[in-house]
Formats: sequence, structure tokens, C-alpha cells
Amino acid sequence: MAEGGPAWVAADWGTSHLRLWLMDAGGAVLRRIDAPCGMSRLERDGYEPALLALLEGVLPAQGHLPVICCGMAGAAQGWCEAPYREVPCPAAAAEGAVEPELEDPRLRVRILPGLCQKAPADVMRGEETQIAGVLLGSPDFDGVVCLPGTHTKWADVRNGEVAGFKTFMTGELFDLLPRHSILRHSAAGADWDEAAFEEAVAQALSVPHALMAGLFGLRAEAILNKASAGTCRARLSGLLIGSELAAARALWGGRPVKLVGEHKLAALYQKALVQAGGAAENLDSEITTLNGLRAAYRALEEQTS
Amino acid sequence: MAEGGPAWVAADWGTSHLRLWLMDAGGAVLRRIDAPCGMSRLERDGYEPALLALLEGVLPAQGHLPVICCGMAGAAQGWCEAPYREVPCPAAAAEGAVEPELEDPRLRVRILPGLCQKAPADVMRGEETQIAGVLLGSPDFDGVVCLPGTHTKWADVRNGEVAGFKTFMTGELFDLLPRHSILRHSAAGADWDEAAFEEAVAQALSVPHALMAGLFGLRAEAILNKASAGTCRARLSGLLIGSELAAARALWGGRPVKLVGEHKLAALYQKALVQAGGAAENLDSEITTLNGLRAAYRALEEQTS
Repeated sequence: MAEGGPAWVAADWGTSHLRLWLMDAGGAVLRRIDAPCGMSRLERDGYEPALLALLEGVLPAQGHLPVICCGMAGAAQGWCEAPYREVPCPAAAAEGAVEPELEDPRLRVRILPGLCQKAPADVMRGEETQIAGVLLGSPDFDGVVCLPGTHTKWADVRNGEVAGFKTFMTGELFDLLPRHSILRHSAAGADWDEAAFEEAVAQALSVPHALMAGLFGLRAEAILNKASAGTCRARLSGLLIGSELAAARALWGGRPVKLVGEHKLAALYQKALVQAGGAAENLDSEITTLNGLRAAYRALEEQTS
Repeated sequence: MAEGGPAWVAADWGTSHLRLWLMDAGGAVLRRIDAPCGMSRLERDGYEPALLALLEGVLPAQGHLPVICCGMAGAAQGWCEAPYREVPCPAAAAEGAVEPELEDPRLRVRILPGLCQKAPADVMRGEETQIAGVLLGSPDFDGVVCLPGTHTKWADVRNGEVAGFKTFMTGELFDLLPRHSILRHSAAGADWDEAAFEEAVAQALSVPHALMAGLFGLRAEAILNKASAGTCRARLSGLLIGSELAAARALWGGRPVKLVGEHKLAALYQKALVQAGGAAENLDSEITTLNGLRAAYRALEEQTS
């Protein structure tokens, strides 16, 4: 290994992006690399070259560099399928890791499996590693881990295990509707009206079916009452997140919630949860992912040593 | 007027398409013309040339050919704005018709206004003419006219007036989600599983928040249980239509419903309404539109004669 080079590499290989962290032997981050080579842009034989290109300068002259990878690289359409582990089971993701065959002997890659739930059918890939990261700091946590994002996950965590979970397409709807639906005329852009967000959350929490009944109203408010794009956009977000909270209340009601997601989005969920009578703590998403990958690396090294 | 030429032209100028019907003096259809020149593809000065190109062969040597037009041609972004009439008001759409200035003296165009509702904010353009068409055959109808489509409208009709209405984006969601969301991997194509549709309608009618909670499950069912594209697609439709019916129950519960829409879609709504304990009659959409335009033509001719 080059002096000062990484001891191992933590990797989060998502649908659209790959994030790498070069780690030293003590678990500190030497460097972070972001690349737009997610699963959706790669063929199966494109993963190893993509990784080699990004790590070329830090590959060891002798031996190999371990890469611990969570996310979509383990999907059936990814690099090497890591079959889902079925809940209830520990979040810790080293068990069931798969190792793709590589051309280059200077790399050794392990891909962590996701979780599945048979009924109601649900799947996750990557978030299980974040949940393991949460539990690294709070091994006795009994509550809910909510991971807001394109597909927001709510995981019921008890006895050190993931007992069950539920996915909502809220983030994807918030991305799609202002781009592809009639709301593109009323809710595009990046403006934001915080009061409109809070009102819409309250409406979604108190009125059943507020989302279905309210979507076209966003457009009509813009036509008839000149509601601004920022107001429409914040109302749409509030209707979506409020409806998600109403639908997920059986999971989080009366329990502590730990939120792990991009900062602004997690703050919206936290605010809405408080409006709904819940309580949530925000955790840093990157630290949590890294903690989960650190735990997996440690467990895999113990297996092989 | 050329011998055997039309006495007037009925026009439905929508967002994506223009439909014209050449009418004889007795109100019979001589010919139907479909053209892909909807509002979304035209600048303001493109409407007259588009119409002239389609009607060139039937324009009169002397006098003018009346064109009665409903739909998006009257929108603020359309040809000539026909300001919304506010409910409660009669559906009959001749009142408030606007006349764009034309270059060619052989045409005389009247554009019928849509309806608006101030609170909750809602708008329609074109459907008011179909409602007027329904009332032409049933002037004393007291009930609900449901117009399924991209933006499904539910109109509360009583005392010969539209008392109020509500729009749902159900059709647009059903179009968007299998094309642009993660469901494109599971619900694309045209296959259909009728039993899955019925189950999903039942679920949406009985479980609050079934839509929000169920969307990602369609994808997970495909991954874990190899649910077919036809099953996912029919479930998505059932979740959407069932959720719409649940959200609109205050409108249609205990009242007769007349459905006006594309045949297959109207049949799905009818089936779902029966499942939900309602009763609906299906009316032919084209006949209904034409009846509304006939009524408007008659009223406008009386005004000008």
C-alpha cells in the first residue's frame, strides 16, 4: 500500500451516483469522491472499470484494497446480486455480503445485501446500512428510523433488529409532479413559502384524502388567485409529507423517531412530525452511512482474519 | 355556401387535439375531423390558420361559416380568453362566449367560456359544454355528472345549474407514474389484470391512505413476487380510482351519477362506483359534447337573429 494511502474504501453505490470515502486504518476519512456513475448508467461489466478509474492513484503495489459497498450495486440489475435478507433481522449488513469476481487483483470488493419484507411487500438497498449506522451509536434504540429521500423508508427498530419497514414514494412524486404534470405551470422552480408548507401539512393530517383532493387545486389556485410558484411548491410538499405522516402514523405514533436524510428535507420532515404530535431527532446522513459501512468493514475483517 | 356544405362547425379545442364536426342545418354530423393541433402546440396567431387549413374545402363563397368552440382555445394561454363563469350557474355555455378577431371573413368563431369555483379553487374548460349536453337530454337531472379523463371532474348538478365541482388528477397520475417513476420497471405496457383492479379498488375504499402507502408496494411486489406488468398496472389504476371515489364520496354518495368519458375508462369508473355502493349510467362522450355544442349554437343564433 502506498504510504499514507487508504486502508480501505467505503462506497455507497446508488441509482444515479457513486460516493466513495477513502478511509485510514483508524476509520477516519482521507478523501471523499463523488461520481455520476450510478447503477442506471452502468452495464454489469462497467462497475470494475468505473471503480478502477476513480481509485487508480491509491491502489496498493502489493496486496489489495478492500472496498465495502452498500446500495444498488447489489441489485439484480446491478454489479453482483446480493440477495435481500428478510426482516425481522439485524440491520448490520455484513452478513450476506457478496464478492464480485474481479479482473484486477489490487481490489477486493464486498457488496452488502439489502432487506426485504414479504408482506406487505417492501425492499430497501443502502438504507439498512444507515440503520446499522444509527444503531452503532444507539445499540438499544427502540423506535423508528425514518430515511427521507426519493423513496422514504420508515423502519421499525426494536431489540437491535429491524422488525419491519414501509416505503413511500413521496420524494419521487415531489420531483415528478412539478416537472411532468400540469403543475409544471404552477409549481416549478425553487421558491418556497414556509407558511404554505405548514398549512398544507395541517390539512393533510386532518382531512382524509387531502392529497388526491388537493393536487389539482394547486393549479386552480395559481390560475384563479395568482398563487406563486413558491406557494404551490411548498403546498405540494406539505400535502405529500403530511399525507405520508398520516399514512405512517401506526409506525411512528408514540415512539421516538430518528431522521436520517439530506439536511433540508430532514428538517421538513422534523417540522411536520412535530406538527403531527411526534418527536424526531435529526442525524447527519453521511456520518450515519459511514458508521454503517465502518461496522460492516470491521465485521468482514474479523470474518477473514 | 357550397351546396351540401356544412351549416356550422362544432369544435372541441383541447390541450393536445382539435376535433371538428361539420354540421348540417338540422344538427346532423356531415364529417368529423381530428387534428393534433391542440393549445399546447399553437401560438396565439396559429389558431386561425390551423382552422382555415382544415376547413378550406368547405368555406362558403359568400357569407361566413359559424364555428362554435369549447375547450382550451378560450384559456388565457389560448386563442382568445373567454373568462370563466363562476358557479353556481347554468352549465349552458353560450353566455359569455367570446369572438376572436379574424383575418378571413369566411369564418365566424365563438369560443365558449369555462367554469370556475372560488373556494375550493377549481376550474374547467370544455366539460361545462358536456354537462350542458347531459342536461339537454335530462333537463331536470339532480345528481352528479362525472367526466373521467386526464383531469376527472365531478359536477354537482341541481336545479338545472352546476352548484359546484371538484377536479382530480387521477388520469394524469396514471399516465405519469408508469412512464416517469420507478413504476416504469413494473407497470409499463398495456396488459391488464381485472381481478387486481377490483382488489385495489376495494383496498383504496376501505383503507385510509391506501394510495400513498401502496405505490411503492407495486414495485416491491414485482421484485419479490414477480407480479406481472398487467397486475401492477391494474392495481395502480384501482388504487388511484378507488382513492378518488373515497375522496369524492361526499359528492356522489346517495345520488345518481352520469359518467361521460372515453368508453374503457368510463367503464372502469362505473365498475368501481358499483363496488363502492354507488350507481352510475354511462353516456357517450362524443354525443354529449355535440349536444352541448348544438345547444350553444342554437342559443347564439337566437341572440344574433
